[in-house]
Amino acid sequence: MNNLIAIDIGGTAYRVGLFDAQGRRLLLFENPTLRSGGRQWMLEQLEKQCRALKQNSDSPIQACGVSFGGPVNFGLQQVTSIHVPGWENFALASWVKETLGVPCLLDNDANAGALGEYHYGAGRGTQSLFYVTLSTGIGGGLISGGKLLRGRDSLAGEIGHLVMTDAGVTCSCGARGCLETLSSASAIARTAQEWAERRPEAVTRMVELSGGSAEGLTAKAVAQAALEGDMPAARIIRDAGRWLGRALLTVIRIVNPDKIVLGGGLAQAGKLLLEPIHEVLEELKSPALHATTEVVPGELGTYSALYGAVTLALEAA
Amino acid sequence: MNNLIAIDIGGTAYRVGLFDAQGRRLLLFENPTLRSGGRQWMLEQLEKQCRALKQNSDSPIQACGVSFGGPVNFGLQQVTSIHVPGWENFALASWVKETLGVPCLLDNDANAGALGEYHYGAGRGTQSLFYVTLSTGIGGGLISGGKLLRGRDSLAGEIGHLVMTDAGVTCSCGARGCLETLSSASAIARTAQEWAERRPEAVTRMVELSGGSAEGLTAKAVAQAALEGDMPAARIIRDAGRWLGRALLTVIRIVNPDKIVLGGGLAQAGKLLLEPIHEVLEELKSPALHATTEVVPGELGTYSALYGAVTLALEAA
Repeated sequence: MNNLIAIDIGGTAYRVGLFDAQGRRLLLFENPTLRSGGRQWMLEQLEKQCRALKQNSDSPIQACGVSFGGPVNFGLQQVTSIHVPGWENFALASWVKETLGVPCLLDNDANAGALGEYHYGAGRGTQSLFYVTLSTGIGGGLISGGKLLRGRDSLAGEIGHLVMTDAGVTCSCGARGCLETLSSASAIARTAQEWAERRPEAVTRMVELSGGSAEGLTAKAVAQAALEGDMPAARIIRDAGRWLGRALLTVIRIVNPDKIVLGGGLAQAGKLLLEPIHEVLEELKSPALHATTEVVPGELGTYSALYGAVTLALEAA
Repeated sequence: MNNLIAIDIGGTAYRVGLFDAQGRRLLLFENPTLRSGGRQWMLEQLEKQCRALKQNSDSPIQACGVSFGGPVNFGLQQVTSIHVPGWENFALASWVKETLGVPCLLDNDANAGALGEYHYGAGRGTQSLFYVTLSTGIGGGLISGGKLLRGRDSLAGEIGHLVMTDAGVTCSCGARGCLETLSSASAIARTAQEWAERRPEAVTRMVELSGGSAEGLTAKAVAQAALEGDMPAARIIRDAGRWLGRALLTVIRIVNPDKIVLGGGLAQAGKLLLEPIHEVLEELKSPALHATTEVVPGELGTYSALYGAVTLALEAA
């Protein structure tokens, strides 16, 4: 079998990689996403980099897989993003087919991440896996018996929109109290900004790490401060982790997978998140229902979705 | 193909039926369960009735399927019930094999109910289905792509033990705030009994329908009173239905099945439960995630698990 191209389009960075049929990475381009560039800019970069990979490939390109960081209609193979201008209803897989002349399969980053960790990462050897991508938003992908369970409306795995509390703020999806408003990177940044307004003295270190302005507070800075032992920062991350733990208990009760794998940028917080998750799972456990589902960090770091795109390419081939 | 025997062992009633390979019911015994009789009594009844079915069958019995109203270890084909004395770790499938001389497959009533509705009831023609059995307790079974998703510890579908509230009472499973403590028949009876203590004048009609004593208040009487327009009874059922609606939203977000099918004795309350469920699903919906999962009553009434046992027999054959 020939080589494959895998593409991962995210809001912060995008990646274009050349892989062999065994999933070994041969070449990789990784660059920040220029948000203001919109779709047109992104397509130009992809085209340029795919052509470069093609030229440098020792054998022909057989197929391409694409992960998109936003809603995708898998049946229509279209992006359905309503957040990013220019992408709405764009037939991205067809564009790849026409541009590269190879078959292509497209899915969202949560499903791609699930496929990546299942085949090449923390999920190897499992029968079932629930992957959670913790980033600006929160998504999820469910694999059972080696197959993605997409659901009636391609909405299976939407753990970010579990309603966790009546007292919650409004979510990007329009509902209130979603997990995404409590445990995502944007929720952590927002909480830190709320602290900055009420108790500016508590966020000194977080603000320093965010470049000096309270408006620019990021989840990354909060996590960094927490790692250094800053108490208010640790408290913010812990609360986010505890809500996440409650949501994961729900996944355990409903699908009882072999593993729950945490990926996405925020999962880099590691122990800071895993400790409150395990704390909650212990507090809320049912003595009569001994579920042995493990909660583990992904093994592919920020490349889960890219490796998932390799799986999509193999399926398209 | 020859005929099949299906057995459904419940806490209130048990059923033993003769079916043909197309799932048509040929003969049925249906009797109340003598709880004080324990395992020994039940096995004697089953043996007697299975022999009677065998004698009356126009063709040989090919296989048997059994649904048990309590936890089952599917891998070991054993009952793991800790609630009913005498059943713990009993190898029920082996007993059937030895007694009837045919292969046998055993599962719990929630999984059996899911199989029954999927193949013979409200789930016909769907790809995926989540079945909820509403009875003394609350169980669930998940079917995707025609197969039961049992999970790592045979605990998938345990919707009765979703933790819904921090303020909840202790559940039979040992945890607190489970859905089962809010929406099951025993929860409804318990709530009515609490009303009886605090406001005896409010439960007059419910007590009448329960045979005159507040201690004997049953969910059936509460549902009956609610159907007659009794306001306190309607309020109790509505609250149970609203909690159930929240739990079903969770199922929709995690697995987005084609249908959620409600079965079990309490599902006979019909509209009384479906209205508050749909009310909550409407209140908590995400404008950006338009899940079209339908919530419907089962079509097999109290026979969902029995028909599931037919499916288990077909699998065992």
